[in-house]
Amino acid sequence: MGTNDPIGIFDSGVGGLTVLHQLLQLLPEENFVYFGDTARVPYGSKSRQTITHFSFQDVNFLLSQEVKMVVVACNSASSNSLSELKAKYEVPIFGVIEPTIASLSEEISKIGIIGTSATIESGSYQKMIKQKLGNKALLYEKACPLFVQLAEEGLSDSHIADTVIEHYLSKMKANSPQTLILGCTHYPLFINSLQRYFGDSVSLVNPALEVAREVHKYIHENGLENKNGRGDIRFYLSDVPRNFGSVSVNFLQREIEDITKIDIERY
Amino acid sequence: MGTNDPIGIFDSGVGGLTVLHQLLQLLPEENFVYFGDTARVPYGSKSRQTITHFSFQDVNFLLSQEVKMVVVACNSASSNSLSELKAKYEVPIFGVIEPTIASLSEEISKIGIIGTSATIESGSYQKMIKQKLGNKALLYEKACPLFVQLAEEGLSDSHIADTVIEHYLSKMKANSPQTLILGCTHYPLFINSLQRYFGDSVSLVNPALEVAREVHKYIHENGLENKNGRGDIRFYLSDVPRNFGSVSVNFLQREIEDITKIDIERY
Repeated sequence: MGTNDPIGIFDSGVGGLTVLHQLLQLLPEENFVYFGDTARVPYGSKSRQTITHFSFQDVNFLLSQEVKMVVVACNSASSNSLSELKAKYEVPIFGVIEPTIASLSEEISKIGIIGTSATIESGSYQKMIKQKLGNKALLYEKACPLFVQLAEEGLSDSHIADTVIEHYLSKMKANSPQTLILGCTHYPLFINSLQRYFGDSVSLVNPALEVAREVHKYIHENGLENKNGRGDIRFYLSDVPRNFGSVSVNFLQREIEDITKIDIERY
Repeated sequence: MGTNDPIGIFDSGVGGLTVLHQLLQLLPEENFVYFGDTARVPYGSKSRQTITHFSFQDVNFLLSQEVKMVVVACNSASSNSLSELKAKYEVPIFGVIEPTIASLSEEISKIGIIGTSATIESGSYQKMIKQKLGNKALLYEKACPLFVQLAEEGLSDSHIADTVIEHYLSKMKANSPQTLILGCTHYPLFINSLQRYFGDSVSLVNPALEVAREVHKYIHENGLENKNGRGDIRFYLSDVPRNFGSVSVNFLQREIEDITKIDIERY
């Protein structure tokens, strides 16, 4: 692998486009290979074993595309499978959790974490926050499975979203968290409705932005800048889902033209 | 295959347990093999091509278990892949759509159909209703993707469900359908909230019940009764999802004890 090779990103589906969006902002002269496992999406309701099996296949595919590093955009994969991925592969691999924890101020103590069932139940965010902040950290965690479908239907800032947010998060709100970690690639689409619900005193942390900053820093500290890049993106999916066009525009904030469908079971 | 072999059922996940429940009521002396593709669930947002590829693997697995017939519990697979399945395999294969249409009275004309995006967009229900009732049939169709997650979280008879039903179905209600087809295995869990919303003048049609009646009839007309059966069920899943215990009880109305996890990609 060379510095002019693309950066690989994988996600369970289209949600990782919010991570790609942030990477494009910070690293406009890199090229990218995006793989979304749309045939088997979501990962967030599935077991650690299955998520890890799928993640291995996802990385195998990206390596077949000669990427210089891998970004695990998916919080469910980052929280359940990152250590197995790092143990198996030599290529640099970045998950979304570590840079998110690194971005937290030492001053805060009351932290909310929302994500898929797989992310919340893995305890990864919780464990790393405790390592950083010790026992003074008060954590309020909640899996919010309906958020993914709401986001994909363009309902993340709607009356239904408000009702669902109240259902999942009224107990958390009563604890007055200072910070809320949006621990799923789909959740940045809820920034408006969550900020409205919690009020301006709660700061929302977007792991997509934090991992992009981490990758940016790593590339510059290690002289891995692409000298010939120009923001080219190659999109690969394991299925071309029915709603891909409308959903992808919301997530990436631009149109996606060329998609190659691959058989991920072969990797 | 012999008459004493089990009946095979497959579904994208746990939803097909509503079909198994109906089969157990009508055919208590048959044995069953249930496969739920929980590693790749849902099918309802995915393309016809991917649903058919998965369905082939699902039937291959069931045939490896020497089933005497196959019930496609999943509406998304029944509506997108049944003809390909029937063309490929010699074993009798039953989908949920044909018996549902057969159950409709000739007298009705205003019919609502709800299901996944894959089911609604396939047009299978719509086409078969038009074949039966001709142009006098007025069809109102709506994909309701949030219903699956609501059902799996035990929220199918809740304030959130009422809000989501209003969002999806207010236009349909304004057309005063006489009959509403619950075109997804998860939707029988919404019978209370849908009946409350539409009122008692709307009759709800449950394809799970209709396919069970069809299989019952076929077995008795063809002398395929199991002489040694006693309602044994063998459960196979491609993943053991985090919420399986609580969800399966709601769907099957009994506990599931022994589950075997299989690697469906091998089939």
